[in-house]
Amino acid sequence: MSFRATVLTLYPEMFPAALGLSLAGRALEAGTWSLEAVQIRDFATDRHRSVDDTPAGGGAGMVMRADVLARAIDAASPEGDLRPRLLMSPRGRPLTQERVRELAAGPGAVILCGRFEGVDQRIIDARQLEEISIGDYILSGGEVAAHVLLDAIVRLLPGVMGNEASGEEESFENGLLEHPHYTRPQEFEGLPIPEVLTSGNHAKIAKWRRAEAEKLTAERRPDLMAKKPAQPVTK
Amino acid sequence: MSFRATVLTLYPEMFPAALGLSLAGRALEAGTWSLEAVQIRDFATDRHRSVDDTPAGGGAGMVMRADVLARAIDAASPEGDLRPRLLMSPRGRPLTQERVRELAAGPGAVILCGRFEGVDQRIIDARQLEEISIGDYILSGGEVAAHVLLDAIVRLLPGVMGNEASGEEESFENGLLEHPHYTRPQEFEGLPIPEVLTSGNHAKIAKWRRAEAEKLTAERRPDLMAKKPAQPVTK
Repeated sequence: MSFRATVLTLYPEMFPAALGLSLAGRALEAGTWSLEAVQIRDFATDRHRSVDDTPAGGGAGMVMRADVLARAIDAASPEGDLRPRLLMSPRGRPLTQERVRELAAGPGAVILCGRFEGVDQRIIDARQLEEISIGDYILSGGEVAAHVLLDAIVRLLPGVMGNEASGEEESFENGLLEHPHYTRPQEFEGLPIPEVLTSGNHAKIAKWRRAEAEKLTAERRPDLMAKKPAQPVTK
Repeated sequence: MSFRATVLTLYPEMFPAALGLSLAGRALEAGTWSLEAVQIRDFATDRHRSVDDTPAGGGAGMVMRADVLARAIDAASPEGDLRPRLLMSPRGRPLTQERVRELAAGPGAVILCGRFEGVDQRIIDARQLEEISIGDYILSGGEVAAHVLLDAIVRLLPGVMGNEASGEEESFENGLLEHPHYTRPQEFEGLPIPEVLTSGNHAKIAKWRRAEAEKLTAERRPDLMAKKPAQPVTK
């Protein structure tokens, strides 16, 4: 059964966009996953097809209406739909590779793309939307965040990555940033490939890579080091 | 002078994609920013137009070559180009709204999109690439990460957001996640808008919103609370 994504958005023309190309695009064509973009505005009922209104209590911007979103969500994800309902929002819990992996193992996702100042809190509560943040910055809307989420998920679907091994040894998968990479040419602008990497000594190479990964992580992401469970160094 | 983005990629057809629509798309048409996508493969010199090779020291995947990338970067960003050179990479420092704001205030950006296992470390060192990560998850390539970075930047460019106030009061701008929003209808599935928001008492509303923002941040993002400098509560 393929992974089924339904995106609720005011800009359905933003899908598949980049997701229709490269790895995700080939998987889409192959039927490994499917993508449906639903226009939220089609569920407005007034003459002006309004989807938003001014914030209760005052303030800048507009808020997406709970009643319109409820109709859109219920149509896209009727009772019995086992897919999680996600809301892309900077207020959400930060997306992790672990959550990506869980989502990729499931039946799909219903993804609501926030716009304007945000969405009415009552729809988040009433439809138990899981708020997901892709990072600590503000976007013009949830659409590019949904691209990121789906790209991360799709590459983990069975058969999508040519080289299965590739999925395992990367940044975050072992709680460390990845070690530096080198390839031919042997010398670039006077800089050689580090000698250890051309030594043919696999134990030494593994040890060097681990040490480099730890050094980089300590320097750039002490927060990841702190989270990481103590582990025996494998060599 | 408009913000000038040059993206180096193996998938130039992934640009502008979603960035050609909505807010960013209108700003692109208006000339507030410009976007050039450069095909890295055009700078390969061998018969097969190779851009990558196997990792020195062994291991899965392929590594992008320093010599090919050097030619692409030097052509896109010759001496005297004051734009920062960025590499989208999960090994980078996490993108923050503060860095987005700095970049938006500058002349533009040259953005290299990593693919495969990564890029040869020597090009990062030799061209002083700033590695930027949009979050702790793995993407199929740097392209959707570049979309995110550019979307975040473009909305801050002068004249892009209709409502200037909107840029200031959002998540992260004050070190807190944003308070919940509500709008009409007054009652949704039996749930009313919280009374305080319809009280008309602006001091009470500001205090309630601040308390809700602090509660949410403490619950979901204690890490942000820890980072936040102590501040007098404004009301």
